[in-house]
Amino acid sequence: MGRLTGGDPSLLRRINSAVVLHALRTVESATLTDLVRVTGLSRPTVEGVVEGLTDSGLVVETPAEEGEARRQGRPARRFRFRAEAGHLCGIEIGPHRVSALLSDLDGRLLGSVAREVTVAASADERLERLRGAVADLLKRAGVARSSLRAVGVGSPGIVDAEGNVALSTALPGWTGLPLGDRLRRSFRCPVLVENDANTAAVAEHWQGAATRSDDVVFVLAGLSPGAGALIGGRLHRGFGGAAGEIGALHLLGGEAPPEQVLSTTGEPLHPLDEEQVARVFALARAGDAGARAAVSRFIRRLVHDVTALVLALDPELVVVGGWAAGLDGVLDPLRTELARYCLRPPLVEQSVLGEAAIATGALRLALDHVEEQLFAVESTVTARR
Amino acid sequence: MGRLTGGDPSLLRRINSAVVLHALRTVESATLTDLVRVTGLSRPTVEGVVEGLTDSGLVVETPAEEGEARRQGRPARRFRFRAEAGHLCGIEIGPHRVSALLSDLDGRLLGSVAREVTVAASADERLERLRGAVADLLKRAGVARSSLRAVGVGSPGIVDAEGNVALSTALPGWTGLPLGDRLRRSFRCPVLVENDANTAAVAEHWQGAATRSDDVVFVLAGLSPGAGALIGGRLHRGFGGAAGEIGALHLLGGEAPPEQVLSTTGEPLHPLDEEQVARVFALARAGDAGARAAVSRFIRRLVHDVTALVLALDPELVVVGGWAAGLDGVLDPLRTELARYCLRPPLVEQSVLGEAAIATGALRLALDHVEEQLFAVESTVTARR
Repeated sequence: MGRLTGGDPSLLRRINSAVVLHALRTVESATLTDLVRVTGLSRPTVEGVVEGLTDSGLVVETPAEEGEARRQGRPARRFRFRAEAGHLCGIEIGPHRVSALLSDLDGRLLGSVAREVTVAASADERLERLRGAVADLLKRAGVARSSLRAVGVGSPGIVDAEGNVALSTALPGWTGLPLGDRLRRSFRCPVLVENDANTAAVAEHWQGAATRSDDVVFVLAGLSPGAGALIGGRLHRGFGGAAGEIGALHLLGGEAPPEQVLSTTGEPLHPLDEEQVARVFALARAGDAGARAAVSRFIRRLVHDVTALVLALDPELVVVGGWAAGLDGVLDPLRTELARYCLRPPLVEQSVLGEAAIATGALRLALDHVEEQLFAVESTVTARR
Repeated sequence: MGRLTGGDPSLLRRINSAVVLHALRTVESATLTDLVRVTGLSRPTVEGVVEGLTDSGLVVETPAEEGEARRQGRPARRFRFRAEAGHLCGIEIGPHRVSALLSDLDGRLLGSVAREVTVAASADERLERLRGAVADLLKRAGVARSSLRAVGVGSPGIVDAEGNVALSTALPGWTGLPLGDRLRRSFRCPVLVENDANTAAVAEHWQGAATRSDDVVFVLAGLSPGAGALIGGRLHRGFGGAAGEIGALHLLGGEAPPEQVLSTTGEPLHPLDEEQVARVFALARAGDAGARAAVSRFIRRLVHDVTALVLALDPELVVVGGWAAGLDGVLDPLRTELARYCLRPPLVEQSVLGEAAIATGALRLALDHVEEQLFAVESTVTARR
């Protein structure tokens, strides 16, 4: 059982420091008197904490405003949080492209980069392409690599807690790759690797279609869909990081593999060739019978997969992203069928962040990591239970 | 943000009281000196708290042992937690029977009762049958109804937070029933109503097949299976209490309803007639071709449903209960197919608690409720965030 009494002075210092930092972060600037009032700490404690935070570079004294200086003999010193004291990077490593976002410690976006990469690229080639893109991004933004405090990464597959890819069929050479370790060689800061549908779910919850719900399933819809779920606002990774990998359900009945579902010729499509897929949808719209049948097969399977997720998890909201979300005629049948077959049908919305979802969620994970270290009083305390 | 400084004296009293109660509950009896040492509280605080707890009936001074009295002039007073100061009831309301378990505040079982009820019974008849059974149980155990501190109930269907049955196809007149309110008329204490597969999951985690895992899916296997999931040791109810109701998945493809899956004649079985079901399994074992095909259809569907749950949730362990768990040839194909089709296959175990699972889990929910009120220091504090 946790003890609430008794004292660990270093823990107390950390808590007080976090309280002051949190207070400073919510305002533009504050005087010591403001901080004493808002935090409930004593003046000497606040002074000591602010001095320590100033030494560490996280807080800076703001220059006195001229008007203020004139009005009073000696204006009260003001302090502000230095969001520019560190930076964060959110990275997507996908089949077609690598992309990255850069932000300050407030999560304010400072720049972005995206580079195409061929589906067939090896793991080394893909990572090299990423390194080049990030180097350019940092250079353009004028941010030193050493200023990065955390890097988040979203990528297809099952990823373990250390950032190793346990399984990924989407990218060549990805299964078994120690992705976290490989990236930690480039970034001398914590690197958090997560499944791409999971980071996209986090992103839509942060600033996309799911900001008003804490119980969300995000479906990364493609030939073989993946999903990420938030339960009570927290990412549900599953015991082995494999939660939401619903695509395997159709292998069970000996059904056609996903590459064949949208085929009009019997020849399997390349699972990642979006142009081929778009052609089939265009043909279907133009009335081609074979294409219509293929599209109908595709939608039926997607509906089945999403229904399975919804019945298992009972979310408030389903957000559909990935390339299939942008195609005509996917969302409406999904809504209709979920309303028919789910005992408690969820809302269904299209992704707001689109292509940016995966990298945005990865950035949020990096931000969460830094906030936990810097600002979280609760987690500082509860971690000691 | 939570404030850690400053004082709410009534909160502090509650915390101190919970700390002392918790300490007393883990030992047979303790002296005030023991309590001062274990809790870290001052002697006057401990004395005040123990006095208050004694007044409330939760703590009692134990008579001095004779030997001790002789050895020393005046032995130190000893106190113990009165587990008999209140009682808990765990109830199952199912299609074929109602059952109930009675325990003290330590969760120690004091008695049980089970009564058959016809599948066709109305809601009133079913509840009347339950009332009679519980009255007998209390009488036999010599426990006054007013001594009940909380009652937990497990029943089929989607149940909302107030204990209303939003939907239940298994019991006549159950959909729309304000079950919690109806039971609160009989019991003048908190009544917690929960889906039956959910309480069974809680039970297996408490003292069944899942005591060593916090990430569990419990499958209540019948013609149309339901499931309950624990994530990180906590029940996952879903946004609307419908999580795990996977049985609806097969309605989607226009597949045969569950009553027809095990039929050998084309005539649907009664979904709840277990004797009819057992006959089909016996025929299959005896080599009857029609029965074998029916059993194979049944198992294939169960495997599909469980696979969907496992892909969505990625549990460490699947526990299979319900009547189908006891039938030959259900668990092995489940293990084989999950290992084949799940990217990270879970362990599969049979329910240990069997028939008692639902009522046992309901009892645990009642116990959780009382413990939260009496003992939970952490929840007292965190509820104020």
